[in-house]
Amino acid sequence: MFYTIDILGTIAFAVSGVLVAFNKKMDLFGVLIIAFVTAVGGGTLRDLLIGDTPVSWMKDIAYTYVIIASAVLAIIFRSKINYLRTSLFFFDTIGIGLYTLVGIEKGIQADLHPIICIALGTMTASFGGVIRDILCNEIPVIFRKEIYATACILGGATYFLIIQLPIETNVVFIISGIVVIVTRLLAVRFKIALPNIYRS
Amino acid sequence: MFYTIDILGTIAFAVSGVLVAFNKKMDLFGVLIIAFVTAVGGGTLRDLLIGDTPVSWMKDIAYTYVIIASAVLAIIFRSKINYLRTSLFFFDTIGIGLYTLVGIEKGIQADLHPIICIALGTMTASFGGVIRDILCNEIPVIFRKEIYATACILGGATYFLIIQLPIETNVVFIISGIVVIVTRLLAVRFKIALPNIYRS
Amino acid sequence: MFYTIDILGTIAFAVSGVLVAFNKKMDLFGVLIIAFVTAVGGGTLRDLLIGDTPVSWMKDIAYTYVIIASAVLAIIFRSKINYLRTSLFFFDTIGIGLYTLVGIEKGIQADLHPIICIALGTMTASFGGVIRDILCNEIPVIFRKEIYATACILGGATYFLIIQLPIETNVVFIISGIVVIVTRLLAVRFKIALPNIYRS
Repeated sequence: MFYTIDILGTIAFAVSGVLVAFNKKMDLFGVLIIAFVTAVGGGTLRDLLIGDTPVSWMKDIAYTYVIIASAVLAIIFRSKINYLRTSLFFFDTIGIGLYTLVGIEKGIQADLHPIICIALGTMTASFGGVIRDILCNEIPVIFRKEIYATACILGGATYFLIIQLPIETNVVFIISGIVVIVTRLLAVRFKIALPNIYRS
Repeated sequence: MFYTIDILGTIAFAVSGVLVAFNKKMDLFGVLIIAFVTAVGGGTLRDLLIGDTPVSWMKDIAYTYVIIASAVLAIIFRSKINYLRTSLFFFDTIGIGLYTLVGIEKGIQADLHPIICIALGTMTASFGGVIRDILCNEIPVIFRKEIYATACILGGATYFLIIQLPIETNVVFIISGIVVIVTRLLAVRFKIALPNIYRS
Repeated sequence: MFYTIDILGTIAFAVSGVLVAFNKKMDLFGVLIIAFVTAVGGGTLRDLLIGDTPVSWMKDIAYTYVIIASAVLAIIFRSKINYLRTSLFFFDTIGIGLYTLVGIEKGIQADLHPIICIALGTMTASFGGVIRDILCNEIPVIFRKEIYATACILGGATYFLIIQLPIETNVVFIISGIVVIVTRLLAVRFKIALPNIYRS
């Protein structure tokens, strides 16, 4: 089931990359690359920082196939992609929840401090979008108005709080993932943002 | 002979970096750095992703000397550099062919899937230019109109197709490299581009 | 004492990140991230290139605490930060001196060529600012008018020149660090810049 969610998240991330690349009038190759880095960028940074090389997507070719297929389909059916926006947002949000947990898990295995593990989880979930925006020559959207990363951090904190209770690890994973997902859904639904630090 | 081509490619890449940095009115240090990252950026990303550290250029000081010398000469003789444009383009194209093969070879040694090896080859050949453009605050040219990466991918695919035939490895290398070079030369000569995905 | 200087440098770098992020109207999370990458970016690149992973700041949680505390204080007292500009510039300059030496030391331990060690030192000291500027969608300031990197290179060269003399290593460190600091102070004081390569 984890693997299925992972693949769904990868698809959602890849398609989000295609949409941004389209707006920048990139060519076919550019669109594929942006889809790719959006989908695997976060995990790649995580693997590099902890020294787990070759990085994940190089070891499992399935990601490459899924990303290329998603990007090609998104290009072909781009006029219809608006109908899928809700599903994509949903996959994307689930993907973020899962990616956060994958990052945390890898940090724990590398014997790192809980705060660093949460940072790794947040990175895994959000850095693909950062690279996408840098390659498209924009200030990363996550630095300006997304509650995105905050959801990952809350989920990560939840993990380290409840892992100390006598609960099964699987349940801890599920609860933490749900915290990420619900935080993001609520934030988008009720337009919750971080407190404004620029008083007018 | 490989080493000679490698050095010629490095020179061409370094000079291409100098030219872009000039247009951005960078200072002496900026120009040197852009020359450097253009020349070694692709190989560095490749080495990082597969975990082959310290990265190549740190282990062979010759690259550093060649890049600094090329950059300094390009700065001194910048008014004459137009006369060299054809030679530089030629070195650059040969460099791309070689860099692609070096990347593929390293991927094979790391026991990675052929598609990943082709991606590594393409990265080695093209990522230096991507970093150059990011540092100069431009959308990487390769994502918009270059057939550049396509040439690397075609050459890489050729490699994995003909390596299965009873041909000597050296010959396979030479043929694949020639595919990269000829594809690029033809694309530039006849202004071949990827199919336009933005119908007007 | 080294550790104290290191922490002071980290604070100065983090605050410089906060100031740039403010100008870009980033949200709270964006400001924290920019503070973080400005402070640890150089050391992270250095560790990745030489393969020393997990990277330094992941192994010592103190950096994370210091950076978050500095950023939060800088945000709260941002209207007063102008009074601290001189102190910050001073910490920053000392930080650069120290970071240069840390990078050189790591390069020597990895058995790399002196020129590569100097490059690692310069990177450690300056790359945080480069990433900061890229994330803020600006051409890195260091490529246009800062004598910054030149100070690191001079300090690094000093190190390798005088280490051959019969002087204690600690003294060599201190002298080299002072060369970095004094070069930068003099350059800023007397507005010394690299020779202009764009004749008008």
